[in-house]
Amino acid sequence: MNKGRLEAFSDGVIAIIITIMVLEMKVAHGGSLQDLRSVLPVFLSYVLSFVYVGIYWNNHHHMLHTVTAVTGGILWANLYLLFWLSLFPFTTGWMGENHFTAVPTALYAFVLLIAAIAYVILQQTIIRAQGPDSILKKAIGSDWKVKLSPVLYIAAIVVAFRSAWIAQALLVIAALVWLIPDRRIENYVRATHSTSH
Amino acid sequence: MNKGRLEAFSDGVIAIIITIMVLEMKVAHGGSLQDLRSVLPVFLSYVLSFVYVGIYWNNHHHMLHTVTAVTGGILWANLYLLFWLSLFPFTTGWMGENHFTAVPTALYAFVLLIAAIAYVILQQTIIRAQGPDSILKKAIGSDWKVKLSPVLYIAAIVVAFRSAWIAQALLVIAALVWLIPDRRIENYVRATHSTSH
Amino acid sequence: MNKGRLEAFSDGVIAIIITIMVLEMKVAHGGSLQDLRSVLPVFLSYVLSFVYVGIYWNNHHHMLHTVTAVTGGILWANLYLLFWLSLFPFTTGWMGENHFTAVPTALYAFVLLIAAIAYVILQQTIIRAQGPDSILKKAIGSDWKVKLSPVLYIAAIVVAFRSAWIAQALLVIAALVWLIPDRRIENYVRATHSTSH
Amino acid sequence: MNKGRLEAFSDGVIAIIITIMVLEMKVAHGGSLQDLRSVLPVFLSYVLSFVYVGIYWNNHHHMLHTVTAVTGGILWANLYLLFWLSLFPFTTGWMGENHFTAVPTALYAFVLLIAAIAYVILQQTIIRAQGPDSILKKAIGSDWKVKLSPVLYIAAIVVAFRSAWIAQALLVIAALVWLIPDRRIENYVRATHSTSH
Repeated sequence: MNKGRLEAFSDGVIAIIITIMVLEMKVAHGGSLQDLRSVLPVFLSYVLSFVYVGIYWNNHHHMLHTVTAVTGGILWANLYLLFWLSLFPFTTGWMGENHFTAVPTALYAFVLLIAAIAYVILQQTIIRAQGPDSILKKAIGSDWKVKLSPVLYIAAIVVAFRSAWIAQALLVIAALVWLIPDRRIENYVRATHSTSH
Repeated sequence: MNKGRLEAFSDGVIAIIITIMVLEMKVAHGGSLQDLRSVLPVFLSYVLSFVYVGIYWNNHHHMLHTVTAVTGGILWANLYLLFWLSLFPFTTGWMGENHFTAVPTALYAFVLLIAAIAYVILQQTIIRAQGPDSILKKAIGSDWKVKLSPVLYIAAIVVAFRSAWIAQALLVIAALVWLIPDRRIENYVRATHSTSH
Repeated sequence: MNKGRLEAFSDGVIAIIITIMVLEMKVAHGGSLQDLRSVLPVFLSYVLSFVYVGIYWNNHHHMLHTVTAVTGGILWANLYLLFWLSLFPFTTGWMGENHFTAVPTALYAFVLLIAAIAYVILQQTIIRAQGPDSILKKAIGSDWKVKLSPVLYIAAIVVAFRSAWIAQALLVIAALVWLIPDRRIENYVRATHSTSH
Repeated sequence: MNKGRLEAFSDGVIAIIITIMVLEMKVAHGGSLQDLRSVLPVFLSYVLSFVYVGIYWNNHHHMLHTVTAVTGGILWANLYLLFWLSLFPFTTGWMGENHFTAVPTALYAFVLLIAAIAYVILQQTIIRAQGPDSILKKAIGSDWKVKLSPVLYIAAIVVAFRSAWIAQALLVIAALVWLIPDRRIENYVRATHSTSH
């Protein structure tokens, strides 16, 4: 099977997700600063989601870099991840339009949680497919970020019903943690290349 | 002609279809769980269609893998398939918003039926173009899935006017049948490669 | 400059145009056959536009096949063509929603006309860039389709105000004429290859 | 890291941005010339934004041509630029629907300004990554266009509150300045190639 087409399809879906989210920012009918202010919550939720989708694209990019053969399992694990990412425009719009209240914030964090689990499932599927000498397994080592994120998402879900703003803060922190790209894979690949030359 | 561009264009269209379907999940104005529940039917129809489009992308991927030269016939048969797939967002949204009632369910199954026929037309066009030694023809053998699906879709159309829920069950079963990717083509290609080395 | 990226970008834009047109088929609130019938005019205009965009993608594909170096002129002539194609979703939706009445039909034909002219401009820009031995110039010969189409579009614009249905017939005929892909380019390329071997 | 995937993703996002802007041209319910006239302001703002996005795609294309290795910094600087470009459909729709009044025009120019700064940030990030012998640095020389554009955008923001039409004129001039593609990079690359042969 062809990795290039899997990457191209994933890139296409992620590019569309990241771009159609902006359609949730409905154009206000009036042209004053007040009208613009009414779009502000949706804009803020858009910024957060743009960062999250950017992080997923970045990490997805790194992870697939280690893949040599695409199995049916990898293909469906990848589609499962894309499915949950495709819900971001909806949860983003709902959270923004309802000004970051409890239920929409909890749903937003819930979809982030399932997407994070889907990412781990894809990671494990690739590692299984690569066998005992999996380059991805060696590269990720003890992936503290992958372990921390779901804790923060679950905390955000629980906290949302008490204070939606603390929940938002948790989601922002979880994004900032991921903003640092997964350099371990790059480093490992580079180290391996140096050794083999 | 260039197969890469045909694949890239098909991937683009399929990626857009699978992603814009989520736009049918209109953001509810309220932020309560009840408001969320009102989106549930559209969400469920979205899940079903996401799986179907994923199946089509997967099988399309395998089928085009055997193509070496793109003829005008293949190009138009491919566009004909994409046309029917492009109606999925509409039928999905209509079925979801009307809570899986008879007519929308029958239309949903009808578009699935015509898309399945379009898939067979594309398959036959490729086989004809490949000539007597068609690798695709040998690979697909007796394609029981391709024969079973239309029967299930027709059954769903007929049953929808009696019980929309049995019709839904038939559509879910028809999707589950296809979830197993078309490994025969892979196997055949692999077997041929092994022999020739 | 890189032809691959020009093709990929054009494919992306054309794939989006052909797919978002379906969003103009607004999901009816009711779930009866009557509700479905109200979408029929937009569906019919969607079919016509899908065929036209498919034709443009197909011919664009053949034309760019002869390009070796992308100049700034080709790049902007290509964007100019994409601009007019990007108006298809609007004119398609407007014509469908107004049941093929005079002004929307005339506008639809007008945008087709300008897109056809933009296609010729792109063709001429490529021929100029290729110089005296232009492979595209030799391949297209006396392009009667390119000359016939604008006449049919202009006739459709004029006739629309008398009989919108005759105008539609002209637009359908103009599409059918183009459905036969531009085999001359293929033939010429093939002939040249045969000679040089 | 893989430059091809960065280009493909950027092309995808830019292709979607340039195409979904047309969705802001809401189909009028009536089918008369007056109904069409009501869409004219959104159409004009769409033309301006199409040209701007085309310019960005073109220049982005040239700039990335000089990149050999994609660093994490380049990846995020690129996403930052895409974020601001992704706001174009919103600002375009808002400006068009409010008939080019002061606040929407100022916001439109403001997003252009930040996008221009994001472009410079990406340029500088690439130059830093390329080190002292940066081919991009040598190619851009004294980039008067990059310096002039922000001045015109700032002027448009200030002037918008006095005369929205002069502000529009400034934005049109700033686009016309950029319409001439960045041939210096091409020339430099070509010159270097000639020398090395």
